[in-house]
Amino acid sequence: MKEIKDNARELMKGFCRVCKVCDGKACVGEVPGMGGLGTASSFKNNLSALAEVKLNMRLLHSAVEPDTSCSVVGCDLDMPVMAAPIGGVSFNMGGKITEDEYADAVVGGSKAVGIIGCVGDGVPPFIHEAGYAAISKNDGHGIPFIKPWEGEEVDEKFGKAKDTGCTVFGMDVDAAGLITLRQMGRPVSPKTPDELAKIVEKVHGWGAKFIVKGIMTPDEAELAAEAGADAIVVSNHGGRVLDHAPGSAAVLPSIARVVKGKIDIFADGGVRDGVDVLKLLALGADCVMIGRPVAMAAVGGLQDGVEKYFATIKGQLLQAMVLTGSQTIKDIDARVLFAG
Amino acid sequence: MKEIKDNARELMKGFCRVCKVCDGKACVGEVPGMGGLGTASSFKNNLSALAEVKLNMRLLHSAVEPDTSCSVVGCDLDMPVMAAPIGGVSFNMGGKITEDEYADAVVGGSKAVGIIGCVGDGVPPFIHEAGYAAISKNDGHGIPFIKPWEGEEVDEKFGKAKDTGCTVFGMDVDAAGLITLRQMGRPVSPKTPDELAKIVEKVHGWGAKFIVKGIMTPDEAELAAEAGADAIVVSNHGGRVLDHAPGSAAVLPSIARVVKGKIDIFADGGVRDGVDVLKLLALGADCVMIGRPVAMAAVGGLQDGVEKYFATIKGQLLQAMVLTGSQTIKDIDARVLFAG
Amino acid sequence: MKEIKDNARELMKGFCRVCKVCDGKACVGEVPGMGGLGTASSFKNNLSALAEVKLNMRLLHSAVEPDTSCSVVGCDLDMPVMAAPIGGVSFNMGGKITEDEYADAVVGGSKAVGIIGCVGDGVPPFIHEAGYAAISKNDGHGIPFIKPWEGEEVDEKFGKAKDTGCTVFGMDVDAAGLITLRQMGRPVSPKTPDELAKIVEKVHGWGAKFIVKGIMTPDEAELAAEAGADAIVVSNHGGRVLDHAPGSAAVLPSIARVVKGKIDIFADGGVRDGVDVLKLLALGADCVMIGRPVAMAAVGGLQDGVEKYFATIKGQLLQAMVLTGSQTIKDIDARVLFAG
Amino acid sequence: MKEIKDNARELMKGFCRVCKVCDGKACVGEVPGMGGLGTASSFKNNLSALAEVKLNMRLLHSAVEPDTSCSVVGCDLDMPVMAAPIGGVSFNMGGKITEDEYADAVVGGSKAVGIIGCVGDGVPPFIHEAGYAAISKNDGHGIPFIKPWEGEEVDEKFGKAKDTGCTVFGMDVDAAGLITLRQMGRPVSPKTPDELAKIVEKVHGWGAKFIVKGIMTPDEAELAAEAGADAIVVSNHGGRVLDHAPGSAAVLPSIARVVKGKIDIFADGGVRDGVDVLKLLALGADCVMIGRPVAMAAVGGLQDGVEKYFATIKGQLLQAMVLTGSQTIKDIDARVLFAG
Repeated sequence: MKEIKDNARELMKGFCRVCKVCDGKACVGEVPGMGGLGTASSFKNNLSALAEVKLNMRLLHSAVEPDTSCSVVGCDLDMPVMAAPIGGVSFNMGGKITEDEYADAVVGGSKAVGIIGCVGDGVPPFIHEAGYAAISKNDGHGIPFIKPWEGEEVDEKFGKAKDTGCTVFGMDVDAAGLITLRQMGRPVSPKTPDELAKIVEKVHGWGAKFIVKGIMTPDEAELAAEAGADAIVVSNHGGRVLDHAPGSAAVLPSIARVVKGKIDIFADGGVRDGVDVLKLLALGADCVMIGRPVAMAAVGGLQDGVEKYFATIKGQLLQAMVLTGSQTIKDIDARVLFAG
Repeated sequence: MKEIKDNARELMKGFCRVCKVCDGKACVGEVPGMGGLGTASSFKNNLSALAEVKLNMRLLHSAVEPDTSCSVVGCDLDMPVMAAPIGGVSFNMGGKITEDEYADAVVGGSKAVGIIGCVGDGVPPFIHEAGYAAISKNDGHGIPFIKPWEGEEVDEKFGKAKDTGCTVFGMDVDAAGLITLRQMGRPVSPKTPDELAKIVEKVHGWGAKFIVKGIMTPDEAELAAEAGADAIVVSNHGGRVLDHAPGSAAVLPSIARVVKGKIDIFADGGVRDGVDVLKLLALGADCVMIGRPVAMAAVGGLQDGVEKYFATIKGQLLQAMVLTGSQTIKDIDARVLFAG
Repeated sequence: MKEIKDNARELMKGFCRVCKVCDGKACVGEVPGMGGLGTASSFKNNLSALAEVKLNMRLLHSAVEPDTSCSVVGCDLDMPVMAAPIGGVSFNMGGKITEDEYADAVVGGSKAVGIIGCVGDGVPPFIHEAGYAAISKNDGHGIPFIKPWEGEEVDEKFGKAKDTGCTVFGMDVDAAGLITLRQMGRPVSPKTPDELAKIVEKVHGWGAKFIVKGIMTPDEAELAAEAGADAIVVSNHGGRVLDHAPGSAAVLPSIARVVKGKIDIFADGGVRDGVDVLKLLALGADCVMIGRPVAMAAVGGLQDGVEKYFATIKGQLLQAMVLTGSQTIKDIDARVLFAG
Repeated sequence: MKEIKDNARELMKGFCRVCKVCDGKACVGEVPGMGGLGTASSFKNNLSALAEVKLNMRLLHSAVEPDTSCSVVGCDLDMPVMAAPIGGVSFNMGGKITEDEYADAVVGGSKAVGIIGCVGDGVPPFIHEAGYAAISKNDGHGIPFIKPWEGEEVDEKFGKAKDTGCTVFGMDVDAAGLITLRQMGRPVSPKTPDELAKIVEKVHGWGAKFIVKGIMTPDEAELAAEAGADAIVVSNHGGRVLDHAPGSAAVLPSIARVVKGKIDIFADGGVRDGVDVLKLLALGADCVMIGRPVAMAAVGGLQDGVEKYFATIKGQLLQAMVLTGSQTIKDIDARVLFAG
């Protein structure tokens, strides 16, 4: 991994410092770029909310060789981890690799290690085109996330995404905070529960599953479930849309309390290693998304970089499962959390 | 804004560093100057109390294009923001622009963007004279704040202020902490509720409104309301009179609990962007005042700087309203606050 | 004061850096010297416990020109402040002024501004001799503090102290932590309540008052009161005897709850300005002792330095009283504390 | 001690910086080496959990010359302190002294000051061989800790350990987190309560005592007691196996609540001085283990270094007992802890 990170640091110069710990401190306000918006407090809150979680270490048990496999939104995964949808290599990451190379690395690398890569959306069109091409190339093994465009653009995008052969679709409603898109004449906006239900209905009509990303309160988690969504992603969009949002780990338990078991719960934000994955699962998530570290691995080592990064994550997750006495993913619950 | 800040940094050299984040750390104890008194803890508390507030992000709703307009102390504003009364360009800001230029920028710039600028008081007389001239020039569209002088000086000042054509008057009673004024033979002092009531009576006799600034406890908020004040400003005077006062955001909720709806509640202290404005509104304020950042914008870009700064604030406030599901200013309440 | 501090910084080189804020960070573990023992946590806890206290700012009242005078242990003071007993100029402060000059500055300077200076004890004998000489020279206007020696040394010291004409005696029992004294063959030790009662009885027999210094728990405060002490000093000995003791401001309220009104309560530790004085009074103290800052003022400016320092303290205390609505020292109570 | 630390700093170059305060900050992630795993949060949590504990200072009592002696796992000790089992001088400490020299220093130095040194286990075999030789040389005065190997290796190791003449055996089950050992073909793993009971039975059959190290929850403390263990060590393995474990001082009270008096409770993690020893005792431990500081003393000064370090610890413990009014080790309980 060291070589991959060094390479990424070279290629992302001026856009991302590939710090020892990716914590949002060096890149405050660098949007576009890889930083958090404004004071980057939402980015940092993701990290600090996770850091506050401490684990019960246990060694008197039989969880010697744990099983990390799981199933979410109808997909069997080797571990409860996905690559978060990120796009815009040119203006966020320095553009030293192409959007196509990037999407291929993320989608292909994820598939190779038995999990799934998500792809992003945005302006200009080559962002989603690169993602869709990568999913097609991988026989539909990938999840396209579509921005909450106003008007007919949403329908057009869903149509194009369907052609990739994918079985799961996503929408990151939190992208509605990107006022720059509105200023570019491509408005995105919040969606009412009714509007969301119509989108879900269409996707379900295709026999596919739907994930809504950017849920940060229990009431909206319930609205998403009532609108028929198969899954939510608890996410503050990596701290890039609203300054001063709490970290996702801070809101996750209250959200799990109302929708756990009814729909699948994903969470992202500040996940840096396999212990962080275990923490989010213990707080109520069924699956975890990882953003910036995957982007760095993809830029620094293409598909190989992505595979190596996820292999590291799996090793750390396994070790954390042994040390908390968790034989299966389902065993990871509040029992592993130190109550303080 | 970058150019304006760079220019201000040049012009305010030796008086204000125009830091990346204006947080009172670099200018500890620099009074006169732009710093906080003593250890600057009151200045810093303003920032930290706001920083502790986290927001509920919501995207499943219909607040697509929010309305920021509001009405306070009988004035219709394009957004619930005013320029706080600050004076003394020469000894606090370096004197590279004149007190007149400064007051014109603040009052004119505020008016141009549909809000109101307040002007300060002090020694020597050209401070209030510059402010009054700016208000007159803008047809009374500005609010003069008068210091709590002892004896006849108060009456004289109010008389002169009345001539500007203004419809709202203010007094920053917290300036009574400025012992230096007493040492200069121009004593200021706390006011008893009776003394305050007499001032209010006079102002009301003119058909105008009265704001008392420097309220930091629920009991004094009630005393101000009972004395007939139309509004209070929750403020620790930017941390420049009493070291170790709490941040205004920390005391605001308890004050709102006793006088919300009876009088208008203003708050200032540490507001740096539009999200901070939304936070103070959610904590109970009806309108927010901004001090140091406006001063820097005025020094660095005169009226144009002030207008640009407030335009930035409005954009941020709008985005924060979208992302918290707040269609109108009245919708911004405790529901947008993350409970922890 | 700046010149005095600069001078002290020069004279105390190698022993005290006379930092901008005297907070125990730069001099960790420097005992002898001016630092805190070990990790200096007790020194730092004194500062942080005070820093956590925030004040209610009030301006709608009649406390325009407050009265700082008070009476403790039978003495009328211009303000509720004393110079703490500190000795050992040569090994703690660099020895650029003599122990005699130092004691004269502290005792004489305190008397000149209407308060009282305490003097310390230790090895070698010239420490207490310098202190006693200074008190004699000032007609008994000073308080000798005697270490908790074992055996006859206590009685001898009290006898010599009596000859100074003083009317108040003190013992810093917390000095029993100074194991170095035991190693030098001059053992100090804790005192049982019975041993303490016998000392008090003797002092009372002389018609004088007795202060016991180094009380940090409510139970020992009660023991001290039952033993007949006229006053206690809540103090962790400036963090120089036990690492990891709480700050005195943290334990003061629980101690005041049990002995307030029965005996006089002094407190010291981390007091840097007049607002800190007001804080300790509000937390339950009747009088405050100041240590290191007085030592620096004495080294840097002799009696003049001490007088100037106390004049600054008084100005700050006055301003804080105005801004908290406290007309007299007795008015300073929990009402001025921000509850959080 | 300064000379010993300077020498250690020279000899451990590249492996340990021998910082002024050994707090895990400079060596984050340096495993092998002396650092904590990953972000080193578990290492740092050991320090911060101890730092949060504050002590009640008391001086009105008769604890003038306290007695530090105690008895645990059938051994009489001059103070309730042991050297923790640490091995691997070559890859963790720089290899400038041999494993034999190291083990001799720890075991011999501990014996010389009236306490006991523990020795570690690992790969390659010379690690445990050096330890066993040192114990044999000291007539069985030492405690061998065996890793939780899978299969027959455990039995073989216990057999070899028995030959040293020791009367107490230990197993650090938390070492099961060392996945590197599994990768080297020498798997270690958690032990079920049944497996543990069989080991205990064998050891008891030899008339010896058994300590299980790496207990961090009350439920596993009870399991260990039910399995017949004579003692547990509350330990997160110095933060070297699971990132984000709490500090041992944070979990100790809840563990003491369920097994205090039934079995002996040891604790380690972040102990740097004698006051830390007293803190862990007050939180519920019967004896304390010290790791990294002993290792540095051994590398820097061999047996003499270890003896000097423990002499320093004893002096600090004595002083802390005087200043908290603790005449004996049994007197050190919750009464010495500052509650607020």
